[in-house]
Amino acid sequence: MQRYFLENTEIINGYVEIKGGDFHHIKNVMRMEKGDEVYLCIASSTYLASLDRFNSESVIFKILEKQEKSSEMPYEVTIAQGLVRREKKEEVIRRITELGAYLYIPVAMERSIVKIKGEEKLERQKTIIKEASEQSHRDKKMEITEPISFKEFLKLKKDYDLCLYAYEESGRSNNYNLKKYLKDFKKEEKKRIIALVGPEGGFSPNEVKLLDENGFKAVGLGPRILRTETAPLYLMSAISYELELED
Amino acid sequence: MQRYFLENTEIINGYVEIKGGDFHHIKNVMRMEKGDEVYLCIASSTYLASLDRFNSESVIFKILEKQEKSSEMPYEVTIAQGLVRREKKEEVIRRITELGAYLYIPVAMERSIVKIKGEEKLERQKTIIKEASEQSHRDKKMEITEPISFKEFLKLKKDYDLCLYAYEESGRSNNYNLKKYLKDFKKEEKKRIIALVGPEGGFSPNEVKLLDENGFKAVGLGPRILRTETAPLYLMSAISYELELED
Repeated sequence: MQRYFLENTEIINGYVEIKGGDFHHIKNVMRMEKGDEVYLCIASSTYLASLDRFNSESVIFKILEKQEKSSEMPYEVTIAQGLVRREKKEEVIRRITELGAYLYIPVAMERSIVKIKGEEKLERQKTIIKEASEQSHRDKKMEITEPISFKEFLKLKKDYDLCLYAYEESGRSNNYNLKKYLKDFKKEEKKRIIALVGPEGGFSPNEVKLLDENGFKAVGLGPRILRTETAPLYLMSAISYELELED
Repeated sequence: MQRYFLENTEIINGYVEIKGGDFHHIKNVMRMEKGDEVYLCIASSTYLASLDRFNSESVIFKILEKQEKSSEMPYEVTIAQGLVRREKKEEVIRRITELGAYLYIPVAMERSIVKIKGEEKLERQKTIIKEASEQSHRDKKMEITEPISFKEFLKLKKDYDLCLYAYEESGRSNNYNLKKYLKDFKKEEKKRIIALVGPEGGFSPNEVKLLDENGFKAVGLGPRILRTETAPLYLMSAISYELELED
């Protein structure tokens, strides 16, 4: 069933009015009619709703029931990544949205080929996230920030319960502590994880030093070398597997 | 360090002769010189080798040592997938090669939008696999087959120790047995896993019935709906996480 994420929208007396792009999509693309049902995601809750009537510039839905079962991870997982090329970044945000990530933070790092530009295409990225959120049946959209500096990234340590970085040298030296960290995290009923993935060129020695000094833990993702756009998918899948699936 | 997968190549008295595309790459793209070192992957083993000399149509490397540490999974994981569009298929084979898959099998299924064509672009796909194998530092390349029918797929059951299919209805109904199946598989020292992912349109009711009757086990990959090109990455990551990382 079709799913729409509505912002700045209120339920008034059991009815919701939808305008703009979603109105157009419902009317002209989906060609919906009175009685057709959709899911509406409003303020992190999902409602089953039925099309009541069209106005000239909007459509009115009647709320039928609130969905009590959430498809959201009961944890907030943030993926941070060295700045990478646009196509890679878009692929990563699309996939980690499907995989349940809470937030994506691009980080300017020494070996990033891409530099922070005046105008980041944040609008386009938000559209990708909206579509991926709808298709994967999430109750809320992943968030994304403007690129931040590595120095700013290090300061995020205090906001998270588990702070990781995916380091290929850890994989080579059999440092596979990811499992241990996630099991402890689950047992201690922690809430927030952040994991940093390097850009195409990897981490500089200085960055590794600073990560270690600031309490970020290096984890290996197996003995093979993963590309920067694959590592976030491994991390999100492993986190879902460990924290969401039944033992 | 650069890594080359050599086929139909023998080590003769500690030397290896490389011709064709890899010769061209070494000479004209990498512009290597005498003494430069590479990894050569020959018959599932990896060797450190040093450039000895160029002939007019080939280059000779001297084998220095065999690498004893393998980056291969100690299990054979086969990903089967309903036929999907070329770009999606190429993305999947690139990523699951990185993630350590042993074999990829495309399967013609009822809801596949793509049909088996006379000429599958298997050569192009093999090139993608070769590149991804080299970049991810594998010792051997993932294998890939021509598309097979669903009936042929069902017969593969007998060749595997653990036979799974990723079924979104299982995710919705909290059937998260993947973890249990993988833990048992590891404990019982089994070797071979096959997992089927549906095409864009999912499984037909008849296919689900046949999979169940033939002993394939439905597994959910969390409460969100994953696209057909994301599910194989979740499966490979979860399998690596459970079977390769230390407890």
